[in-house]
Amino acid sequence: MPADLTDRLDAFEAFTVELNRAAGEVILPLFRGAYAVDDKGESKGAAYDPVTAADRAAEAAIRSLISSHYPEHGVIGEEYGEDRPDAEWVWVLDPIDGTRAFLAGFPVWTTLIALRHAGRPVVGSIGQPYLGEQFIGTSKGARLLARGRTQPLHVRPCVTLKNAVIATTDPYLYGDEEAQAWTRLRTAVRLARFGVDAYAYAMVAAGQLDLVVETGLKAWDIDAALPLLQGAGGSVTDWEGRPVGGHGGRVILTGDRRVSEAASDLLLNATS
Amino acid sequence: MPADLTDRLDAFEAFTVELNRAAGEVILPLFRGAYAVDDKGESKGAAYDPVTAADRAAEAAIRSLISSHYPEHGVIGEEYGEDRPDAEWVWVLDPIDGTRAFLAGFPVWTTLIALRHAGRPVVGSIGQPYLGEQFIGTSKGARLLARGRTQPLHVRPCVTLKNAVIATTDPYLYGDEEAQAWTRLRTAVRLARFGVDAYAYAMVAAGQLDLVVETGLKAWDIDAALPLLQGAGGSVTDWEGRPVGGHGGRVILTGDRRVSEAASDLLLNATS
Repeated sequence: MPADLTDRLDAFEAFTVELNRAAGEVILPLFRGAYAVDDKGESKGAAYDPVTAADRAAEAAIRSLISSHYPEHGVIGEEYGEDRPDAEWVWVLDPIDGTRAFLAGFPVWTTLIALRHAGRPVVGSIGQPYLGEQFIGTSKGARLLARGRTQPLHVRPCVTLKNAVIATTDPYLYGDEEAQAWTRLRTAVRLARFGVDAYAYAMVAAGQLDLVVETGLKAWDIDAALPLLQGAGGSVTDWEGRPVGGHGGRVILTGDRRVSEAASDLLLNATS
Repeated sequence: MPADLTDRLDAFEAFTVELNRAAGEVILPLFRGAYAVDDKGESKGAAYDPVTAADRAAEAAIRSLISSHYPEHGVIGEEYGEDRPDAEWVWVLDPIDGTRAFLAGFPVWTTLIALRHAGRPVVGSIGQPYLGEQFIGTSKGARLLARGRTQPLHVRPCVTLKNAVIATTDPYLYGDEEAQAWTRLRTAVRLARFGVDAYAYAMVAAGQLDLVVETGLKAWDIDAALPLLQGAGGSVTDWEGRPVGGHGGRVILTGDRRVSEAASDLLLNATS
């Protein structure tokens, strides 16, 4: 990346802190409070898909800041769709990832903010305002901003599946073949955890978790994780081990490619 | 309860805040840090059962305060066993409930402190020091102490299972018959969450969750929840709807007996 782009990246990274703070200020008064819950899924005859006033208000707050600071940038968000998705710089937003955790009062939902340059995510942020935490990364590195302190983030090594601590959001989201794949993986590892959505991605970057497996992701679920994991020394691939970018789908996040390759073998043997 | 016992209860409730703070001071430096992990289960040929230096140090800190302030009291703890379990006042401790969440870096583990009088839990505390939260209850009421603020806790009404938000710690802990029971319940409710251990009990008390179902609990897993739920207007029973106290086993926690009775019917139909 040319030097002038690197300088701009630093400015955008600082702007991401501002965006994350704005989202938190909107969301926190509604967390565990009185809020309107609609069911996007019910009207489509689909699975329960809660979306709250907090989701919408937070995305609106982020979009407002982007359009006032960088009106030429594009925005893709879960709640309000696409504006200028082919712009040179495009923000990809999930104002509340883990709405189900939010609805149950568990503070492991997150605000996801990614910035793409020429189609590739180059800044990624996972924020949890109730915890006062923001995990942020670029190709130059990753760090945790928490309660006035900044600390560098590094993945940890993990050589074999039997020593791996892993997570997935919801084992009941898997289709039949994928469920078999998941069971093979779950029974091969040391410990499996559930229900943490993108907060688990942050824990991989922080060297607390070895592997996260997901399926059915949208771009806004995963874009923020790509620069964060890259900066922390980890990787994000699809189940086949190929790069992920701009789509989502079936994803493996890891701090150590040795363990993700072993996971990939297990997952694909069960689904092929 | 006689007036002099009520006065003592107020003093013990205040002491519980001190105990919880002492535990947090020991645990927090080890959370996401370098700590020794032994495997209690491995040596017994049993399932993975991690216990950390943080568990032991926190229980030791709590026991030390109890023995210096109330040497005549009994203590039952997960890590260090029983002292004077037949005393008039007995403290029941789980220094880190949710050790698996702790190991994965997720801040939903808790410190559980209960005080029994004549065998019955009368003070219950669920503390999460990383969040700065302590949920505490007696028969007189329940409250959340969080970041310098105190707020009363009340359960919420929930009439039917199809509107219920529920949780269980780990669906893979259920035996075959119980797994069928769990599946019947999970597919009957609005939303099910996993992996939160006793933090879910606190969310029932806070009116964020409608129901928690667990199996295989020990006394120190559940004693703290009894006064907390009582004070918040909820209830804790076994799967058959009978009072729980002093043992654990299969438990239903709820804010509304109508929904726990419906859950009980579903669970027992599948296991009978």
